[in-house]
Amino acid sequence: MNFYVMTLFPDMIMNGLNTSITGRAMENGIIKLEAVNIRDYTNDKHKHVDDYPYGGGAGMVMQPQPVYDCYNNIIKKINEGTPGDIEGENSEKNEDAGGKPRVIFLTPTGKTFNQQMARELAAEENLVFLCGHYEGIDQRVLDMIVTDNVSIGDYVLTGGELPAMVMIDAISRHIKGVLNNDISAETESFTDNLLEYPQYTRPEEFMGVKVPEVLLSGHHANIERWRRNQSLIRTHQARPDMFERVELDKKDRKFLMENNIKYGKG
Amino acid sequence: MNFYVMTLFPDMIMNGLNTSITGRAMENGIIKLEAVNIRDYTNDKHKHVDDYPYGGGAGMVMQPQPVYDCYNNIIKKINEGTPGDIEGENSEKNEDAGGKPRVIFLTPTGKTFNQQMARELAAEENLVFLCGHYEGIDQRVLDMIVTDNVSIGDYVLTGGELPAMVMIDAISRHIKGVLNNDISAETESFTDNLLEYPQYTRPEEFMGVKVPEVLLSGHHANIERWRRNQSLIRTHQARPDMFERVELDKKDRKFLMENNIKYGKG
Repeated sequence: MNFYVMTLFPDMIMNGLNTSITGRAMENGIIKLEAVNIRDYTNDKHKHVDDYPYGGGAGMVMQPQPVYDCYNNIIKKINEGTPGDIEGENSEKNEDAGGKPRVIFLTPTGKTFNQQMARELAAEENLVFLCGHYEGIDQRVLDMIVTDNVSIGDYVLTGGELPAMVMIDAISRHIKGVLNNDISAETESFTDNLLEYPQYTRPEEFMGVKVPEVLLSGHHANIERWRRNQSLIRTHQARPDMFERVELDKKDRKFLMENNIKYGKG
Repeated sequence: MNFYVMTLFPDMIMNGLNTSITGRAMENGIIKLEAVNIRDYTNDKHKHVDDYPYGGGAGMVMQPQPVYDCYNNIIKKINEGTPGDIEGENSEKNEDAGGKPRVIFLTPTGKTFNQQMARELAAEENLVFLCGHYEGIDQRVLDMIVTDNVSIGDYVLTGGELPAMVMIDAISRHIKGVLNNDISAETESFTDNLLEYPQYTRPEEFMGVKVPEVLLSGHHANIERWRRNQSLIRTHQARPDMFERVELDKKDRKFLMENNIKYGKG
């Protein structure tokens, strides 16, 4: 899978993702990441990429031309690089008609990113991210190239770089071979609407506090039950919106009743 | 304002925030950022910071001792550095009893970060972020030091570093002097439950598409009205949940009715 990031701060992108799991996936060639500097594509003599907004107002707006030319260069790279794409025959798998990749614009006005979207986007062959700065990007070029407007949450950030990194990290975890085979992204938080249970490791006693006894018992069924109960309690406390969507079995309901935790519409 | 980040990847934090607005705020001394390597505090001969989880399961868990000692070192720094804190007299402003700073653990099980939380946290003098890796951190040390469990959204990430950077960026924008005086964080998305309107800059015509005429009219009231209408349409389309909370005036309602956009409970 190839990630292309259109940005004014390519170093920030490369430095932010070259560690840990995404870094290893790049080393192993499972994912490819390229940060393309929008500034390299400006026709302006002084290398400016922004100008005052029409209609007035604070801040500067990124001009359409450098963004558009940067995008076209990426499309050219993708079409040259994809086997079978010669003579305009585009791979149709997971791409729009015409072989155009999905172009994600990071913006507070976008659809909120979540785990399901991460899983879906992991099926793409190429993904292009467009990072805005200043007070935004000229709407005309956005209308021409962007396929998905995405926000990572209800807060305002300086630019699209951190959101792009967040998305690339979350998406990469769903690509086969990125996580160690024993850790599946599927077992993690959100997939069953349950938050994760608390974890403990050595030493058995730390600052006078012992590890919960059940975890030392070696009794697998009891350990699983305890962990599920802890997840239920946590989800109920921290995320009542998610708790409503948990599929409860008979044992879950018994535990919740015994602990006076309300569930269901009743 | 001082940000301390407890992490296994201090370079990632420093590289990710030294550009653009946060970078300038650090240069100007308005914010201070220190990434502290948890690994420097392990007592383990081989510098290990993680071990297998009690009770079994995939992955590794970060041990309590290095995290705890790293935290204590930061507390020591804060208390030494704060004027008036000598002889245990702690500044009480915005800090817990005992002069302890808020310690934010980045976790999918936390409360969801938003613009309001960013504004609140911007009032703190010191903020400590704890970034987990692997399958989490031993719960005992979390119980001892963490004051706030925070998630930046409903997706799973490799570590707490990107979320910490996201929070620091969003929080910094609310600190006086970080943004240019003409751009107020208050005028941006989310503060009035309205998404931002589209922006346009030069040239007047790009690839055959012209800037909306009203923006060239010089008629300020009309421009404002057009922008507000665009914000209303965008919010209605992209974020019906936010749209419900917008305070509509008479002109808003007239515009919405004329465009067949439903509003209110009716």
